[in-house]
Parts: sequence; C-alpha cells; structure tokens
Amino acid sequence: MKHNMVKGAVAAFAAIATMGAMAAPALAADGKQVDQLKVHGGAQRIAAIGSASAKNVILFIGDGMGDSEITVARDYLHGANGSFDGLDKIGQPGVLGDAEAGTGQYTTFSLGSSSDDSLMAKDKSGNLAGGTTAGVVTPVTDSSASGSSWATGTKTYNNAVDVDVEGNPQLNLIELAKAKGLATGNVTTSEIQDATPAVQESHSTERSCYGPQGKWDGKTDTNGDGKIDPATDGNQTKNCLASQLKENGGIGSISEQLLDTRADVTIGGGSAYFNQIDTTYGDGTKTLWEQARDRGFQTVENDVDAFAALEYQEDQPVLALLSNGNMPTQFAETPALTQEATEQRGAVQCETNADWLGNDTAAGNSASLADMTTKALDLLQANPKSEQGFFLQVEGASIDKQDHAANACGQIGETDDLDKAISAALEKVDLSETLIIVTADHAHTSQIVSEPPAYALSTILESPVDSSQIVVSYGTATAEDPDAADINAGYNDGGMEHTGTQLRIAASGPGAQRVVGLSDQTDNFYTIGKALGLATETADQNALSNDATVAVTRNEDGGYTADASGFDGDAVLSYELKDDAGSTIAQSDGSTPVSGVRVATAQTTSIALDGVTEGAGYTLSVTGRQSGKTVELEFQAQANQSSQNTPGSSDVVAQGGVKNDSANPLGLTGSAVLGVALIVAALVSAALMIKYAKASRR
Amino acid sequence: MKHNMVKGAVAAFAAIATMGAMAAPALAADGKQVDQLKVHGGAQRIAAIGSASAKNVILFIGDGMGDSEITVARDYLHGANGSFDGLDKIGQPGVLGDAEAGTGQYTTFSLGSSSDDSLMAKDKSGNLAGGTTAGVVTPVTDSSASGSSWATGTKTYNNAVDVDVEGNPQLNLIELAKAKGLATGNVTTSEIQDATPAVQESHSTERSCYGPQGKWDGKTDTNGDGKIDPATDGNQTKNCLASQLKENGGIGSISEQLLDTRADVTIGGGSAYFNQIDTTYGDGTKTLWEQARDRGFQTVENDVDAFAALEYQEDQPVLALLSNGNMPTQFAETPALTQEATEQRGAVQCETNADWLGNDTAAGNSASLADMTTKALDLLQANPKSEQGFFLQVEGASIDKQDHAANACGQIGETDDLDKAISAALEKVDLSETLIIVTADHAHTSQIVSEPPAYALSTILESPVDSSQIVVSYGTATAEDPDAADINAGYNDGGMEHTGTQLRIAASGPGAQRVVGLSDQTDNFYTIGKALGLATETADQNALSNDATVAVTRNEDGGYTADASGFDGDAVLSYELKDDAGSTIAQSDGSTPVSGVRVATAQTTSIALDGVTEGAGYTLSVTGRQSGKTVELEFQAQANQSSQNTPGSSDVVAQGGVKNDSANPLGLTGSAVLGVALIVAALVSAALMIKYAKASRR
Repeated sequence: MKHNMVKGAVAAFAAIATMGAMAAPALAADGKQVDQLKVHGGAQRIAAIGSASAKNVILFIGDGMGDSEITVARDYLHGANGSFDGLDKIGQPGVLGDAEAGTGQYTTFSLGSSSDDSLMAKDKSGNLAGGTTAGVVTPVTDSSASGSSWATGTKTYNNAVDVDVEGNPQLNLIELAKAKGLATGNVTTSEIQDATPAVQESHSTERSCYGPQGKWDGKTDTNGDGKIDPATDGNQTKNCLASQLKENGGIGSISEQLLDTRADVTIGGGSAYFNQIDTTYGDGTKTLWEQARDRGFQTVENDVDAFAALEYQEDQPVLALLSNGNMPTQFAETPALTQEATEQRGAVQCETNADWLGNDTAAGNSASLADMTTKALDLLQANPKSEQGFFLQVEGASIDKQDHAANACGQIGETDDLDKAISAALEKVDLSETLIIVTADHAHTSQIVSEPPAYALSTILESPVDSSQIVVSYGTATAEDPDAADINAGYNDGGMEHTGTQLRIAASGPGAQRVVGLSDQTDNFYTIGKALGLATETADQNALSNDATVAVTRNEDGGYTADASGFDGDAVLSYELKDDAGSTIAQSDGSTPVSGVRVATAQTTSIALDGVTEGAGYTLSVTGRQSGKTVELEFQAQANQSSQNTPGSSDVVAQGGVKNDSANPLGLTGSAVLGVALIVAALVSAALMIKYAKASRR
Repeated sequence: MKHNMVKGAVAAFAAIATMGAMAAPALAADGKQVDQLKVHGGAQRIAAIGSASAKNVILFIGDGMGDSEITVARDYLHGANGSFDGLDKIGQPGVLGDAEAGTGQYTTFSLGSSSDDSLMAKDKSGNLAGGTTAGVVTPVTDSSASGSSWATGTKTYNNAVDVDVEGNPQLNLIELAKAKGLATGNVTTSEIQDATPAVQESHSTERSCYGPQGKWDGKTDTNGDGKIDPATDGNQTKNCLASQLKENGGIGSISEQLLDTRADVTIGGGSAYFNQIDTTYGDGTKTLWEQARDRGFQTVENDVDAFAALEYQEDQPVLALLSNGNMPTQFAETPALTQEATEQRGAVQCETNADWLGNDTAAGNSASLADMTTKALDLLQANPKSEQGFFLQVEGASIDKQDHAANACGQIGETDDLDKAISAALEKVDLSETLIIVTADHAHTSQIVSEPPAYALSTILESPVDSSQIVVSYGTATAEDPDAADINAGYNDGGMEHTGTQLRIAASGPGAQRVVGLSDQTDNFYTIGKALGLATETADQNALSNDATVAVTRNEDGGYTADASGFDGDAVLSYELKDDAGSTIAQSDGSTPVSGVRVATAQTTSIALDGVTEGAGYTLSVTGRQSGKTVELEFQAQANQSSQNTPGSSDVVAQGGVKNDSANPLGLTGSAVLGVALIVAALVSAALMIKYAKASRR
C-alpha cells in the first residue's frame, strides 16, 4: 500500500466532512441505572453520531492492553520516543495515505455481581447462571462482558458470553455479518474458546463452558480407571449452565456453537477441547474435530506447516487450532519480584521463547499473530463472499494473560506480536474501503514507575533501544501466591487484576472519527455494525427472520426432520410438535434462554422430529426465540403419495414461512408457495433482462 | 453559550477540512537518543501537522489526572455510565456547538537522572544543577519536566523548570504570549511556586527554589533565637542552585521571577513564600508582597472576599494567593488501608472538607477552581490586551497530591473541581475563536480494581449515583510509611508514585484535531504556540530580540542604569561594562545559564551600572543569553551638558539597538537614531494618510 504522506494528512481530516448526516449526542450528567443499561444499546454514549460505510472491518483487540501496557511495550521495544510500526499508525492522522483517522477513549464497566439474583437466568434446578447475579453496575469488567459489549451492543455481567443479564442471547457481529452475506473471520492467540474469540462464535451464560465435557482435553484418563470415557473423565462440573448443554436440550458449549456459527476462518489455540465428544451428534462417539470435518471444515490441529498450506476452498471453512491451550508467548518469562529481590536481580532484557509459534519450523513456516492475520486475510479475500465485504476480529490475547502473571517480558512480546499483526494487515487492505479499529477489552495491572515499589511486585527492564531503565510494577493481586515456593523466591506468578479505567480506542478508515471523544464499549458494536450495514437495532435484527421458512422432510430412514432456514435474526429456536388431537408430541426445552436449538448461523438448522407416526397429522411451530417470529405448518406423516422416497434422498412433505408478519403476511405454507412463485417470476424477469441487454448490445 | 447540537456535530467534523496546509509526520520506528531529544522541539511526534489559528487558548491541566483518575472520579460522582459536565465535553464531537474537537494520547517521558553528569549545569563550585544528571531517557516524568515540555517545547530532566538538560532557560508560553502582546493568566490550586504553575513564570534548575530563602514561610523563627531573620531563619539549603540566587548574581527564585514575568492574572496558593525578602531589592528589607505592590501588582493574600472583589485595573496585574501553601481540598481524606483493614472499614462515601475555599464565606464568596477560572477570565477579558487574544493556564493541582497521599476522596474532589472549572470556562468563551485543551502532566497510581488487593493499599467507595462499589488501589509507594502510627493503623499516607503511561489529551476549538492520535507532550507547546501565532521555533524566538534596545540613563542620585527593552526572545541578559582603557568595570555573572539578569518579560529590564566615574568614557554591551543578540553602546559618564538632571527624573545619556543583525544592520546607537527617524517619518505618513482619508470622505 502506498502512503502519499502530504496529501494524506490533508485528506485524512477532510474526509470527515463527507461523513453522513449525524445528530449530536446528549451527555447524561449522571449515568443510567441498571434497568436502562441492561437493554440492547442502553449504554451507548454516541448513539446519535453517524457512521460512514466501510466494505470491510478489522477489529484488533489487545486483551488487557491499556495505555500503560502500550507504553511499557513501546518504551522497551522502540524507546520512549519511538513508535510501533502498526499500532501507532492506526488512528494517526496523515500516516496512512488519505485514510480518515481518530482516537478516543471508551468506558468498559459491566453489570452484575450483586447479591440480587432476581434478574439472572436460572437452570432447571433454580441455580444461577454462571454463579453471578445482577442489579448493580460493576466498575471492572472481565473479558467476556467487555467482549459481549462490542460484539452485541449489550452490557452484561462478568462471565457472560453474548447473553444479557437475564441470560438472553444477543446476536453478535459475525452472526450479523453472515446474515448480510459477508465473509467472516476470528483469530486469536488464546484458546479459541476463551472469552474474546468466544463472543464472535457463541452464546453462553458461563465463559468457561468450553466443550460438552467442560475443560477436559479429551484424552486424559482423569479418574485413572484405565479407560478414557467422556462421561467419567470429562470435567464433571463442566463450567456450564446445565440447561445449555446439548445433552440436556440446550444450545451447546462454546466449541460446539463455533461449528454452528461457522465463520469462514477461525484460527487460534485450544485444540485439545475439540477432542471432546458431542454425544448428541451422529452415533454419539465422534469428537468435535470429526464433527467439524463431517460438516465440511478444513481442520488443522497443532500443525504450523499445515496451517501455512491452507488455501480457500468453497464452502470449506477453516478451523485451525495450533496449540492445545493458549499459544506460547514470544518472550520467555520475567517474574516480578519483591522490592528487595528485584533490586538484587537488577535490570533484565527479554529473551525469545523457543516454544513460540512465530519461530520458524524446519520447513520455514511460522504462526505468529502476524502470520495468522495474513493467512486469515488471504483466505477471506479469496472468498467470493468478500466481494460484499468481510469482518475479521484479531486478538492478541496474552497481553492480558501475561499481565495477570506479572510477567513484563511476556506482555511486551505479545504487544509486539499484535503490533506486527496490524502492520501485516496494513499490507493487505485498502483503507479507503476498510475500517481498522485497534482497542482493548479492559486495562490491566502493569504500571511504569520510577523505582521498585515497597508494596507491589516489580521488574526492572533495560530498553535495548534507548537504554532507559523501565520499572514495571504489579500491585493488584487479590491474594498472595498460594505457591509457597514462589513466595519464598520473592514473586507471585499470577492473580493480577484487570482495572476499570477508560481505554484507548483508535481507528483508521471510513468512519474512523466515530471513536473520537468518550464513547462506551457498546458503541463499538454500532460503529462496526453500521459501517458494514448490519442490523444493529433490535427491530432490524428481528426483521432478519421475517423470511424464515421451515420445511418438514421425510428422511430416507423414515424419520422426519424440520429444516429451518432464514432465522437470521435468531440464535436459538424453539419448536413444538402437536398431533391432530392437540397433544404435544415433542418440543424443545425452554427452561432457560440458552435451552432449545442453536441456529446454524445463516444456514439451515435441522431439528429431528421424534415421535412422528406414519399416517397421522401434525402441526409444527418453530419460533425464533430472539425475533419472536414463528413458522407454523401442518403436515401428514406418510410416505409421499406419488412415490416412496427416492433412495438416498429426503422428501419435503410441508413447508411454510413466517406468519402474522407485515413483511410476509400470508403466513403458513401459502407464503412459501407465493415465495417460490415470486422467485420463478424473478428468474424469468432476469432472463428476459439479460436477453434484452444482449440484444441491445448488438 | 448556545449549543446547536445537530448543526454542531456536523460542523465539528467539517471544520477540520478548513485547517491549514499540513505535511504528514514520519513515524520513527525507534526513538531518538538523548542528544536529539534534548534540543528544543527534538521530541515532537507531529511536527509536520499544521495548526489552525485561535485568538485565545485555555490549557487545563489536571495534575496527575490519567485515564484511571478520570474514571475513578466519573464512576463515583456521576456513575460509570455518566459524564462530567465540563471534562467530558472537551474533545467530544458535536456537544459544543460547531466547535472542532479531538482526543488523543501523548507520551510524557523526560530526560536525565543518569550517572553521567557531563551535560548538566554546574554552579561556581562545580556542583550539579538540581542534583540531577542527564544522558538517558527517563520513562517517568515529574511535574516540572512535563510542565517544561508543554510550556517550552523542550524535553528536560525531572526537577527542571523551563531549562533544558544543560540548564539553559527555554522561553515559555506566557513569555512568548506577552512578546506578542497577548493577555496572560496562570491559575492553580497549588502553591503558585509549584512546578506546574512555575513553568509559566520562571526558569529554575530546581523546582523547589521557591523564594530567596527557600521554602521558609517568612514568619517563623526557625532557629528559635527570638528574632525573625531571613538570613538565619530561612531555609538554609534554599533548594536553589546557588548561582541562580539574586544575591549571587543569578536570575532569582521562582517567586521573584513570577514578578518579572508579570502575567496579567496569577491566582493560586503559596502566599507564605511571598513573606520572604529579596535582599537585592530596594533597601533590602522588603518582602516579596511589598515588592509586588511597589511594582504595581494588585495583591490579595489569603482573603477570598478580596479575591472576589478584584477588578481589572490598567497595568495592575493581579497576584492573588489565597492560602499559605496548597489550597485545601474539596473532600475530606479517606486514607487507603491494607487489605484486611479496608475490608473491615467497608465502603465509604466522600464528605466535604470544611476548609475548602469553595465553601462560601460569611459574605457569600467562594474560591473554588471554577470561581478562580471565572475570575481569571473576567480579568483577562476586561484587559484591552485580550483584543489580541489571551493565553490562560488553569491547573487542578491536587489530583496529583491526593493521589500521592493514596486519598481516593481527595483526588475525586479535585477532579470534580477541575471539571467544574472547565464548565465555568465554557460559559465565558466562544469556541469559534478559543481553543480549550484538557490534559494532564502525567498519570498516577490509582487503579480501579474488583477487590482490595493483597499487596497494595486500597479504599472501597460506594458511588452515591449508581451505588456501585469502586475499589481504588494504590500500589506504588517506594517506601513504607515512615510514621509508625500510620503503619499500625493499617495505612500509608503518602509516597505513591507517578506512572509513565501515555496520557489522554482532549481539545475543542480551532485546531483541536491536532491532538488526535499519538503525540508527545512537547507537541502541545507547538499546538498552543502556533494556534496563537507565537514564536515557537528557535530562530523565530531569537528574532524576537532583533529590535532590542538599551538606554543608559543618569539617575537623579547620580548613578547610572542601563534599561534594556525588547529582549523578547530572551529570559536572561548578560552585560559587560568597560572603560575606555578596555578594563572591565562591571559585569554580570555568567557561571551558569541561570546566572545574570532576569529579563522583565516584554518590559524594560533595568541594570544598575556600578563603578561608573563621572567624566570617564565607557562601552556597555548587553547580550540576550538565549537569542545571542547584543546591544553595544558607548557613553560618557558626565552630567548632561546642556543641563543638570531635572529633579526627580533621569536623563538618557546613550541608547542603541542590536548590532550585526540583518533585521537591524546599523548596530550601535546609529540604529536607534535611525529608528527614531523612521518612527517620526511613519507618524508623519500616518498623519498625512489620515488627512487624505478625511479629505476624500468629504
């Protein structure tokens, strides 16, 4: 990409004048209360500020990357007066051609964590979802509540993944982008099930609901009985709301929902959890890896060379998980020590970690975050859907994790990795049509101070660039290290806390100026969603399901299935099957908002209809639990009268569309019939137009 | 001020397109080294970005007000979703009519503090100026180095007030604004001698060089000998480089220089230090208060009602110091405690401090920072000089001081005070011609966390607005509290440290977008200086002394004085008086850069010429030590030949301008003669033109 510097600086400012009409926001002197904040969009600060249109959006998240973390890394890596090659270009007027640019701050608070549990989702047994409660504002967010904020526009409680404080699933950016036909990607250095990537792939009342057997690696004989059995070796508590598990009629764990969301590109860690088994799938013995391949994913498991060889294949999304858990960091650990111990150790410099995936393999391949970002963009740009645009989230996850561990070099190396990923992206995209946003989910513990503090743990670094001595202090662990050996060695290897400060957000590209000033994390959902033309408002999201249809088919094996399509405004479906006598034959669980059938995003969701008897008549209703749109249809359960099923195929016995909706007022099967008629008419018209166009060109 | 919200939001963005031509900045991958950073402007990041013109600039500094401090105060005072009435409007697009708006971050590092002392100013005895040394980048700044950065555009060492790392005075914004004829003001809640206000009034190699007797209150019998004697009761070390003291031929302490700089409005604390005596002034017995009144200042000492009654008086600058030291804070102290103690105490709320000057007096007056800001603006706007514009700095000083003291309510109340000062300013100015910048000098210790930490001290607050519990952690004290009683009580009452993170900067008004992106604290000098059309580049500053003149007069008492005028590009003058035989009769001390004669900013600086004998011939040279411009003139020391001195007056015996300068090539006295001739010619021309104009109107 060329950067015409002089012209760029002028145009970067001038571009703003071309932004769409916008009204001015009102500043509330005193903040809203929880009842107002908990609703979709309720915490926006700049709702009235308009957005520009962007074909593509890339959202870079430095997990835990507050201004302090940025400065620590810049001071060490580039000198206090230096600049990051990528990170410092985003938002900087004039340095990226004529791209619009903006920087600002946003608030990150969450909800929940009070003793008032009245608002919270409960499971069948009456247990609180996620063990958290709602009712007050929580000044310090975790990664899941903050991620849910920008992914869905809804403030929620710490521990929630794309559900509101009452447990209701909220549509996320990848779901909405898929509904619009865009290409989508999700890249992280953490476990792909971790909160930040999870908010683009799932809805979960608990962030640790990694897989159907919890956080088990799928291979360990946990109970030591000599057998590997998911039922007994899996994580018994599972860290999941029971009603969310598929075995209990729920929408499934984060890993399982990832397959339903089916982003075009998913790259990260956490491969081990895909060794677990979804007992409700197929014959009940297949691992999630096997299920992914069954469902057409290109899979890569812990293999950097295979990752490097990935190419776009039509309708074969990429699922590349390159480490069992979180990816190894770029730099080796430098534990923070007590005042006396850190002074004795003196200034240290960072050393490369031999396990880092950014190091070359024997074949010369590597998987730094920059490599993963480049690969994701190559795959997205080769995807015909990207002609309509793409949305890609890239997370540098371990800035946070190493900050939690009071590991200065760890967090610095991960910030460097993110910076280089941004630089890599800048090589691949055109900022006249691509909005790049760089921000964090929350700030963290590390502070740059003058001398090792008396209270906090610290590390003294010496910058290899300007030789300055940088003292990094860590003072927020809630408990002293439980590991006595560590305490005796003068350090604590974890437990540092997030902080609740407002955070930096920077953007370059169309609409970048929307981040200027003070906004809220939920505003970022609207900035991205509106730039891409997604359905950001609840009514528009509900309307995405206006054209939903359901077809009942008789399968080759004689069973019946309901195939629900077009429920693009929903994450969860409920259904009820009644016989002619009005008795309920089968229905989805509706005990909590995460019970029921997970929607296969922008695809067809199949629901097995159990208990159907040949020769009987039935009424099936399928409802999108978010949109409230219902498809109701009647069918006769009998082999197609004109013929038996064609071997190896299924026969549609009934189909219908949404009833009682102004966009589709016929309801029942009539609308589908009309729909087909209209499609045929449209095709005929199109053919005529093509013919006419050809004719007139002669 | 009316806020046309809808129109405003559009215009706020559109305004940017009208900014002047600008080139694009280059981002240095690796930072510069100290040799490049130490020069005037050497640390700029956005030198190539242009500025808009603004008639007026108000710079609000929240001392120590990082994003964390802003968020702590907002969370407590307005709720996590709330907004400050003033603070959050600056930089926010669309909320302030059609004002241009921008927010960004800047780096704050300083220089110095190494073991390499080769660069540092030394006094006559070879002692290091300020006890600090240079040679490395210092990641964490203090208030004096940071203030010097934005006041002068030059990076320097911690402890330096408007001198570079070699001790050379650097011109500050008030000096440069005065050189352009603008009205100027300086307001703070701290001692007026404290670093942040000091950078707009003085040049000092040590920030604690408060007065000629150091930090003595001028009234205490320190040595207990029953007498109050400045020579023995004053602070003996004085915290000053010896050669800077007037008694040693230097430019004087911060308080003394404040009178030389002579801002139109100065309001703050630190009145006690004006009880000290400048022994080189008058008969050597007058306090600085008396000297101020002698020199035409309107003075107010610790009297809120007198402060409230202040009105603009021609050529009578205001010096209102309303407390002996730093001003009392708005809220009473809430000491931070250890984990166990803070949990036992539970959540607290902030209570008003009865001593706060913002409380009403019996007469109904008050002196909150908002009151002081309103008064300063009233005084400036009534001043005819403000027709050319004004520059005002307003500091909320004790956000920092209470953060140092680990006092959560203290820092919150001071942030509130600053916020309300910004609101007060918004009522007084027109943002189409006034640029308001809100930022801080450095970030600080306080962090918002989830639970009281195990290592750091903390306070649990409960917001009266949204009832959230805010845990504020303080973890950076370099030493445990020396007060055993405090330790036993579970808290540390001070010693928390600054942090080195990049900081928020926000602006509204012409040129506000210059703060977008990443800049350096020194860039703020250029943003303000260029907006006001001040001489920001060294060559332009030097040129301000091109028209300097010196007149030698024979005083009524028979002594001789050199009156130097127009040395607007200088802070310090040197002089040498030689007799006809070439022997030096008198000269200024030149042992350090802060030796010599302090320039009376944009006024006439009088130099007593000692040792002149009637009848003899002399050559006097006066040199601006910053500009290098020299006025040299010869004179005969004898009573005016045509008459004796008129009683009560002085006779000019010689005068001259700068020699060897392209702008004024005649040099010596000839240029002054020519100058007079030109002025006369100009007056005649003007008179003719007026006459002609009148004639043509008939």
